[in-house]
Amino acid sequence: MNFKIEKKLKNTLARAGVITTPHGEIQTPAFVAVGTKATIKSLNPDQVASTGTEIVLGNTYHLYLQPGDEIVKKAGGLGKFMNWRRSDAKGNESIGPTMTDSGGFQVFSLGAAYGKEISKVVKITDPSFLLPERFDDSDAPRLAKIGADGVSFKSHLDGSLHYITPEKSIEIQHNLGADIIFAFDECTSPVEDLRYQEEALNRTHRWAEKCLEYHKSKDNSKYQALFGIVQGGRDESLRKKSAQVIAEMNVEGKYFDGFGIGGSFAKEDMSTAVKWVNEILPEEKPRHLLGIGEPEDLFMGIENGVDLFDCVLPTRLGRNGTLYTKYGKINIENTKYREDFGPIEDDCECYTCVGGKFSRAYICHLFHGKEMLAGTLASIHNLHFIVNLVKKIRQSILNDTFYDLKKDFLKNYAKH
Amino acid sequence: MNFKIEKKLKNTLARAGVITTPHGEIQTPAFVAVGTKATIKSLNPDQVASTGTEIVLGNTYHLYLQPGDEIVKKAGGLGKFMNWRRSDAKGNESIGPTMTDSGGFQVFSLGAAYGKEISKVVKITDPSFLLPERFDDSDAPRLAKIGADGVSFKSHLDGSLHYITPEKSIEIQHNLGADIIFAFDECTSPVEDLRYQEEALNRTHRWAEKCLEYHKSKDNSKYQALFGIVQGGRDESLRKKSAQVIAEMNVEGKYFDGFGIGGSFAKEDMSTAVKWVNEILPEEKPRHLLGIGEPEDLFMGIENGVDLFDCVLPTRLGRNGTLYTKYGKINIENTKYREDFGPIEDDCECYTCVGGKFSRAYICHLFHGKEMLAGTLASIHNLHFIVNLVKKIRQSILNDTFYDLKKDFLKNYAKH
Repeated sequence: MNFKIEKKLKNTLARAGVITTPHGEIQTPAFVAVGTKATIKSLNPDQVASTGTEIVLGNTYHLYLQPGDEIVKKAGGLGKFMNWRRSDAKGNESIGPTMTDSGGFQVFSLGAAYGKEISKVVKITDPSFLLPERFDDSDAPRLAKIGADGVSFKSHLDGSLHYITPEKSIEIQHNLGADIIFAFDECTSPVEDLRYQEEALNRTHRWAEKCLEYHKSKDNSKYQALFGIVQGGRDESLRKKSAQVIAEMNVEGKYFDGFGIGGSFAKEDMSTAVKWVNEILPEEKPRHLLGIGEPEDLFMGIENGVDLFDCVLPTRLGRNGTLYTKYGKINIENTKYREDFGPIEDDCECYTCVGGKFSRAYICHLFHGKEMLAGTLASIHNLHFIVNLVKKIRQSILNDTFYDLKKDFLKNYAKH
Repeated sequence: MNFKIEKKLKNTLARAGVITTPHGEIQTPAFVAVGTKATIKSLNPDQVASTGTEIVLGNTYHLYLQPGDEIVKKAGGLGKFMNWRRSDAKGNESIGPTMTDSGGFQVFSLGAAYGKEISKVVKITDPSFLLPERFDDSDAPRLAKIGADGVSFKSHLDGSLHYITPEKSIEIQHNLGADIIFAFDECTSPVEDLRYQEEALNRTHRWAEKCLEYHKSKDNSKYQALFGIVQGGRDESLRKKSAQVIAEMNVEGKYFDGFGIGGSFAKEDMSTAVKWVNEILPEEKPRHLLGIGEPEDLFMGIENGVDLFDCVLPTRLGRNGTLYTKYGKINIENTKYREDFGPIEDDCECYTCVGGKFSRAYICHLFHGKEMLAGTLASIHNLHFIVNLVKKIRQSILNDTFYDLKKDFLKNYAKH
């Protein structure tokens, strides 16, 4: 993997660049589409590519349990298994770039954090977290136990017992074969006290080193890039310490190829926390803000030096009938759209909107009828909206118009 | 509407032809894709067109209740509302042909027949019928009442009361604006006795005349073709009588533009019943066998003079993981497909199979994971399979190879 910065925005941490992976380039800042179980929900790979998406993410925890990482390996890796293809400028199709998370967050959110109502306290950064059918069951037992060497947990599918260590996480991710993989970390609950946060952070750092060591010992490290994850909750000193440790961590001169910024944030202090971290992380390596992706957050993150984002919101909101527009989010199920024969957005170039083919009235009808096409058309629009917002921000860095774009966009976006 | 027979198969009732509608041509025999609520479940219109589908059907009962036929009219009619487009030979896209049923069957199956376990007695011909969530509720009340002038029923959505007469059915279908519409009929339950069947048939014939009269009085009759429906259950004399009456029915010289063959059949005597009817119906007008579409039935129907078929099975079976192959149906959720990295069918040209992009292993995984893409990929394959089987049968009529194709296909198809 190679990362080249093309332009930096004066007096900020923002930059535009290009990541080159064995499966093609990613223009950064970029939005990564989340395909938890090797599919971006309700979309086929051509529909995903049509939104401008350049890279997709699969969840290690889910793919380890189903279909199993060995099967994905036999299929030729995640990109090939899910048939994630992009066309280059000449129209030639090939398997595109992929990434996998480490499984740490899912073990936490489906295991240890299961049943804790932390969604009311903080901005939840993980896709699987807000799934009401899981989180509403507050009497559910804690399924995961965190020990010094790793995490034991019961599968949410069949109750079978599993034990994931840092080495095991990397082994699974080697089998999944994504271009970018992540170190195994503990994502702490923000309701834990500072003493626990520190203990967990130390554990995350020990695990990071084990991941790096295991990764270095395998040939996969020649073509899979390993990102270390910075944790530290909401505490300034822990966050800064974590950035320092992860940035400098190396095993016989083998450093992390990039960085993830993980954990829970309160919406209002997220930008501060991201800045603390990115001022310390080495400029020449890419940074991924894990699980964050609302429009305001994208401007904030990019201004503070983030290169990559992933989030399930475009597709999850889409499946629930909530659509992004430049004037804010709308709920297409609202009866006022029943006879609105225009597209979601007049000037949108997505498959759903372009040429006015699918009207608000039609999409409203599909949602009322609980038809699958509803979620598909809405997800295409939302993913296109977010991916292209990040592309516009990228362009504004190149053009030195970032602040104009930010001001205009956020002013309009607040209208609804 | 115009119907031109290109070739007849000697010593049978089979023929290949072309129906010309205001929205383009349909090569017959043809399979009509069912889009109950103005969407072919889990597919977008481009995916439907990619299967070779030339015409789609919407259900009057469902569209009347939601979103309402007035809204579909304001949207520019069913084809435009659902954005059903096809490309012509030059690649120019335009709204394609559509049809609507009369609502009679849905009123029956969701109303009067609600809770009757007739699916065990006979081959069920209607899409909406086999939905287990409706049919399993055997304690449900009868919601519909059939009177001399029409049918009163409660909406399955909100319990609101409605009254549909033959005139109202045609008025709704004029609003929906499909190229081919159907007369309002009573589809009797096959468990009713002969006396009731005869009474119902007489009512269906009276209603047919009212439909024809109302249709003739409106400008819509200039561009929407009205098909009369032949009923009569499993009784030879009633079926023949119905064919005779509907064939000869006219209002001041205005006849039906084509014919539907409706009702329930036992699988084993369906071919006889279809033959009785088609030997009587005028050769120069198209005939549609309503709600039938298994491979064996397509050969049977075409051999006995059927030009059009519709059925939800390709998409419903697809959503349940059952896939058509030339060696019979397979259940892709079977564990033996977990590591099967070939496509559903090696030589299939559908989006799902072509180029081996989506493997059986991947589709098996998507079904196990309850992912929406599972139903989409399976439905594309199944619809492509059935639509192209009918296209092959058409070609075999033109080439005089019908019996070779039938023998080969059915021999292979029985293998699984």
